[in-house]
Formats: sequence, C-alpha cells, structure tokens
Amino acid sequence: MLYPGYINKDYKKNINYKNRGMKLEGLINQTNEYYIEKDIAIIYKKPTPIVVCNVDYKKGLIKEGYYKIPSTLDYNGIYKGKYIDFDAKETMNKTAFPLSNIHDHQLLHMKRIINHGGISFLIIKINSLYYLLDGKIIIDFIENNKRKSIPYEFIKNKGLLIKEGIRPALDYIKVIDDYYFKEEL
Amino acid sequence: MLYPGYINKDYKKNINYKNRGMKLEGLINQTNEYYIEKDIAIIYKKPTPIVVCNVDYKKGLIKEGYYKIPSTLDYNGIYKGKYIDFDAKETMNKTAFPLSNIHDHQLLHMKRIINHGGISFLIIKINSLYYLLDGKIIIDFIENNKRKSIPYEFIKNKGLLIKEGIRPALDYIKVIDDYYFKEEL
Repeated sequence: MLYPGYINKDYKKNINYKNRGMKLEGLINQTNEYYIEKDIAIIYKKPTPIVVCNVDYKKGLIKEGYYKIPSTLDYNGIYKGKYIDFDAKETMNKTAFPLSNIHDHQLLHMKRIINHGGISFLIIKINSLYYLLDGKIIIDFIENNKRKSIPYEFIKNKGLLIKEGIRPALDYIKVIDDYYFKEEL
Repeated sequence: MLYPGYINKDYKKNINYKNRGMKLEGLINQTNEYYIEKDIAIIYKKPTPIVVCNVDYKKGLIKEGYYKIPSTLDYNGIYKGKYIDFDAKETMNKTAFPLSNIHDHQLLHMKRIINHGGISFLIIKINSLYYLLDGKIIIDFIENNKRKSIPYEFIKNKGLLIKEGIRPALDYIKVIDDYYFKEEL
C-alpha cells in the first residue's frame, strides 16, 4: 500500500497527510536530525548489530551476515549535559503494550543507565499515538506485576503524549523538558 | 603470525605476555565489559554501520552489504552521570599521529558533544603506548595548526598515559577521574 503523504514531494506542506506511512523509526531519525541541525540535542540511532561471517575484501562486499539482538537500546546521546538512552517500540495491540517487546538485557540496561544518573525511557506507539514512558515507571511496573503487558490505560495515565508535527516530526525533547527538567524551566 | 599470549589459555596469569596480540579495540571492549560487570561505567562500542542491500528473509541471512564510514565516534555511554563519547585510534607511525585518522564529521561530532557538556576524547595507540587525548586539545590543535599530524612529543606532553593491565586491560576511567573529575576526588 502506498501512502499519498509519503510519495508526494510536497508532503511537508500538506498537514493532512503529514508523516503518514512513515514508520516510528523514521519519525525519530528525522527528529534527531532536526535536533542536531538546530544544535538542540546530539542523539543518534545506533547501527543495527550485524555479525559478519564472510567478506569479499577486494570489493568491500559483505557476502554473509546475520542480525544480532541488540543488548542495549537503539538511541543514545546528550541533551542539556544529560545522558539520554531510549528505544522506540510499536504495537498493533490496541488495549495493551506486550512486554515481550522489551528484551531482558534491554531492561537491565535501562536500570543501569538510571542508576548511573542517565535518563532512559521508551517511546511507545499505540493506537496511532506516541507516548514517552519513563524507564523507572516501566521497571517498577514489571517488578511489581505479573502481567505480560502494560495496559493502554496505564500508558495513557503515566506516559507523556508526544504530539506529531512537521519539523520536528516527533518533538520528544519538549516532553523531556516538561518531565525531567521541570525545575529548570 | 600468532602471538603466544593470545593463544595461551592461561595468558591472564602470564604477565609478560599480557594482552599481546590483542588489538586496541579488543582491549577497550574487554575493559568496558569489566566496567559494566563492576557497575563502574556503562559504555559500549557502537556496532559498525553496514548498509544492507540484499537479505534472504527466510534464512535471516544478509547476502549483500557494505561498510559505511561512521559519522560519530565508536564508543559512548555514561560515567558518574556524565556523557562519555570517544574513539580508539592506532598508528604505526612512531613520530606523529596522522590527522587523516580523524574524519571531518568525527571532529564535528566531538565539538558538538563538548559544547553540550559531554566528555569526548581519543585513545591513541602510538609507540606501543596508550594515551587519552582530550577532545578540546585535539580541536584546538587542528584549528590552530597547518600540520597534518600531531607530533608524538605533543601527545606525550598533553595526553594522559593509560597503563596496560590485566583486568581491566586498559583502565582509562582512572585517567578520566584524574583529568575530568579532579575536583571531586
């Protein structure tokens, strides 16, 4: 299926079709590029880890490789002197976010980052909406629940809604400001 | 060529052959694992960026891919609440470190990180010794010099010698403590 907003070159002008068809990862990458360009925050997506098994060095060609499960979160960087570390997760489930989306070592990584004074969270796309859910809240939920998913109601209540825009596409820094840097505002 | 220290299973006990044959990247990865295990710092090497052109999805096999030049530095993470971002570079040149080892966008990245309150540096292996050279010093050198390399004497004077050890193999955090967290000691 093709999305009109995606193939139309003037989609930026066309607010009705903005970002439609763009995956969450694309929205965040575009947002990070905007932050770097405007010197707001320096946050990058880490490359996908690949085990390379066979390379043709003459051609610089990788002939055999496999995707590896990442042991950290996908995005990290710096904002206002603070270490930022997060991941983006999408679910088609309308009532809850399945915890199978978070690997054990990713949860451990979040804990470590928070313990060392960093900011860690997930950006969750659910019901076509984007929420920032703080890492401490996620860890607390998992450690004190036997549920295998986080109910949508919980995310709505405890998460922070990130509004979709044009530039940046997903201004999550605005939400970080409100939540993590409140005292400084 | 095989290095006795590398193939000998008991090499950890054998101080004379310690780490011999291990590449700089291996030493730093081993050191980072130690830091994570001991909960000292949470620093990882970013995966090497690869452009994947052809995948056999059934087998999960990457059949065609190419290495990309990274636009950031290889290692980043958090230590004592501070954002840390660095790269490791080796040179066989005995008198100077060629600046061709640092890509333009890597230099720009270092500048941005420092401007945002992060700690950025290079670990340089030269003459079989390991030095931590602060990003500000590197940027200042490049901007105020027409030289195409940093003389070894300069690195010896301005850099911080990292001693090789067993565990961790390259205790660069000790040097970071002395240099960046002096007032806290």
